[in-house]
Amino acid sequence: MKKTKINLGLIGLGTVGSKVIDLFYKNKSIIEQKIGAEIEFYILCDVDKKRFNAVPLSKKIKRTNLWEEVVDNPEVDIVIELIGKEDIARKIIVESLKNNKNVVTANKAVLAKHWDEIFSIAREKQKLVYFEGSVGAGIPIIQALNEGLAANRIKRIVGILNGTTNYILTKMLKENISYETALKSAQKNGFAESNPKIDVSGIDTTNKLSILSSIAWSTWIKPENIYCEGIDKIDIIDINFAFNEFNFVTKLLGIAKLVENKLEIFVRPCLIPSGHPFSSVDNEFNAILLEGDACGNIMFYGKGAGGAPAASAVLSDIMFLARQVAVGTAGKIPYVSYTRLSNISIKEYEKIEGCYYLRFTTVDRPGVLAKISGILAKYNVSIAGVFQKEPLSKYRKAVPILMLTHKTSELSIRKAIKEIDKLSITEANTVLLRIEENL
Amino acid sequence: MKKTKINLGLIGLGTVGSKVIDLFYKNKSIIEQKIGAEIEFYILCDVDKKRFNAVPLSKKIKRTNLWEEVVDNPEVDIVIELIGKEDIARKIIVESLKNNKNVVTANKAVLAKHWDEIFSIAREKQKLVYFEGSVGAGIPIIQALNEGLAANRIKRIVGILNGTTNYILTKMLKENISYETALKSAQKNGFAESNPKIDVSGIDTTNKLSILSSIAWSTWIKPENIYCEGIDKIDIIDINFAFNEFNFVTKLLGIAKLVENKLEIFVRPCLIPSGHPFSSVDNEFNAILLEGDACGNIMFYGKGAGGAPAASAVLSDIMFLARQVAVGTAGKIPYVSYTRLSNISIKEYEKIEGCYYLRFTTVDRPGVLAKISGILAKYNVSIAGVFQKEPLSKYRKAVPILMLTHKTSELSIRKAIKEIDKLSITEANTVLLRIEENL
Repeated sequence: MKKTKINLGLIGLGTVGSKVIDLFYKNKSIIEQKIGAEIEFYILCDVDKKRFNAVPLSKKIKRTNLWEEVVDNPEVDIVIELIGKEDIARKIIVESLKNNKNVVTANKAVLAKHWDEIFSIAREKQKLVYFEGSVGAGIPIIQALNEGLAANRIKRIVGILNGTTNYILTKMLKENISYETALKSAQKNGFAESNPKIDVSGIDTTNKLSILSSIAWSTWIKPENIYCEGIDKIDIIDINFAFNEFNFVTKLLGIAKLVENKLEIFVRPCLIPSGHPFSSVDNEFNAILLEGDACGNIMFYGKGAGGAPAASAVLSDIMFLARQVAVGTAGKIPYVSYTRLSNISIKEYEKIEGCYYLRFTTVDRPGVLAKISGILAKYNVSIAGVFQKEPLSKYRKAVPILMLTHKTSELSIRKAIKEIDKLSITEANTVLLRIEENL
Repeated sequence: MKKTKINLGLIGLGTVGSKVIDLFYKNKSIIEQKIGAEIEFYILCDVDKKRFNAVPLSKKIKRTNLWEEVVDNPEVDIVIELIGKEDIARKIIVESLKNNKNVVTANKAVLAKHWDEIFSIAREKQKLVYFEGSVGAGIPIIQALNEGLAANRIKRIVGILNGTTNYILTKMLKENISYETALKSAQKNGFAESNPKIDVSGIDTTNKLSILSSIAWSTWIKPENIYCEGIDKIDIIDINFAFNEFNFVTKLLGIAKLVENKLEIFVRPCLIPSGHPFSSVDNEFNAILLEGDACGNIMFYGKGAGGAPAASAVLSDIMFLARQVAVGTAGKIPYVSYTRLSNISIKEYEKIEGCYYLRFTTVDRPGVLAKISGILAKYNVSIAGVFQKEPLSKYRKAVPILMLTHKTSELSIRKAIKEIDKLSITEANTVLLRIEENL
């Protein structure tokens, strides 16, 4: 069935939602030309009525504070879910599909956690869910994985996927300030929420890595199965030592790597060589590296946060969908092709190998190094370098000893640290950071 | 009309064609799973019969040395044109469309030169032409511009778009060798053709920039309207001076920039700051920077040459097309949306402004600098810095004078150089290189 006018129902008039409306009217002429049909907002929904006044829209467009009035409205072709909350957002997406509507969302948490449910219903109802804005904001990475690189077997995904944490880590290194001070600066400049937990704990990065991996390997990689460590325990001391002593920059990375049909997948702060392109991805910028068996390494880089870049993705999704709605083909081909029967399994995190940076805090006494290296040897951890530093005032008489290791398993290094941290010569918990030398 | 089996007709079994076949069979299981239908090569075509033996294919697949037998074959759903030549390739594409077949090609010269014809016929016949492999090999840049960033008004495209020239320029700088020596190395290592003219003259970059610009601005930017300068006149002396004295790296850039509805568009070697991400795009790698009004700057990076990366793009195109052929929707929406009535015009090249690097070669005598700077002043060229260097042995007693200018027009700088080169104190033609400081 062809349509000459496409009606949009937008739920959520926050930062992204209001930018979508701005961009829509700013570029309406090129948008309609590219779609080949008229397109208009038919109904807007927000629980906060004040937000309706902020968007200078025609009185003809309906307003409601009940999402059901959008989702149930027979005139609406495409539902745009931009509320950010989880439970209601899931309901909006699912009910829209059940009501035979196509959906655009940027909600990474809901997608990551309800992947199977959402795409099963979409397939069953022959409707589309587009979600370019969910990862990397304006960077068209979802489409690239889904279509542009579809012929490849993806071997690896590495990403700086969270603008807030990248902003904080950049500030810490460049201005030599503590985590707490950098977080405050991020909040002041609009790069962190007043409750920053989802970002700084690594959960947001985990959700995004879940989405990218689920597409790449045509299965559902649940976020709860991804090892996750945030940046909230990061000490400026280690960021400085890593940079000044070893030329490493500290970045929160999401990594998924297929090794003999087992997926090594985790989110954690990593040390990367300062010459690598990722080391200069600063502030709110994101970068994603994909390795395919045919295309080799491909890198994408752009603003990973902010209303306008996210609106770019959401509105491009709307256009892509609207073109299909206009000619009556939307949903005949599922956007995400996946099977629940994938033979890819996730490797136990403790079995993953890597090289590490260690900072021990010990008393200044003969025999300390012998004790530590003895325990490391017991767990087969091979040392690549040792650097004993001057005591820092913060540590009073305690001495920081820095160590880089050769490749070892996460389990071995953790067991060794556990034993070392019990020694009477150890004055504070040992700091462990993963090194990613060959990105 | 739904189809359960998609038949491919492949014309051209060269580097890319044979890699497409390799990749197809290597990843056939995931390819068919993603398409949701069977897919097979139905007929192969090459003028060189020996090439058929090189591909280990089932005897059931037909072979021919006449392209018409592919294009006219009623069983073929998708024609893949990979012959590289221009006239025949154009015929293959046009005749395929006229015969109601969808087309995949990587032929940038044919697309750039026959854009209007090809996409008019495609639209009229409701068929699709996909061409991801034509620019940036495996980098999914065509789809990004066409769809993922569709909501943006594109303000700027900057690209390192040619692997051969980038390989040569990288070698020259890193190994301090002449253009001729670097070209030979490129030829030896398979990064340059025995006749390298299309690459080193900038024509290939111009064709690619024509394609990207035509998509970005929904019009046809003809390659003949793009100012083009190659790298074949580049002297290692200037590459070294630019790097050692001013921290600039020399790259062949294709740039298109919309300024007040006029397009500033050109291909030429440019000096870029050595800290910019583009400066570390080495050898056969490509990089493309897009600036949109909503997404801001987005950068794509990957291998821009080689059989496997191009095959990644071609086969992903085939898959994308095959999914639509399978459900009977292919061609209902044109892939490239463009109008011949665009109000974008191309700025006269000589009116474009920029900063420049100049190398004068003069006799070593008092008053030389006064003469040169007098002429520059006459044409309103403002000097940002002057550096008189020791005479190079190559120049015998001649002295190289390096100069950086402030912003001036191409016309002014050329007029000034013309006059300076006529002076009796000038011993060799002045070298002019554009500086792109704010990429």
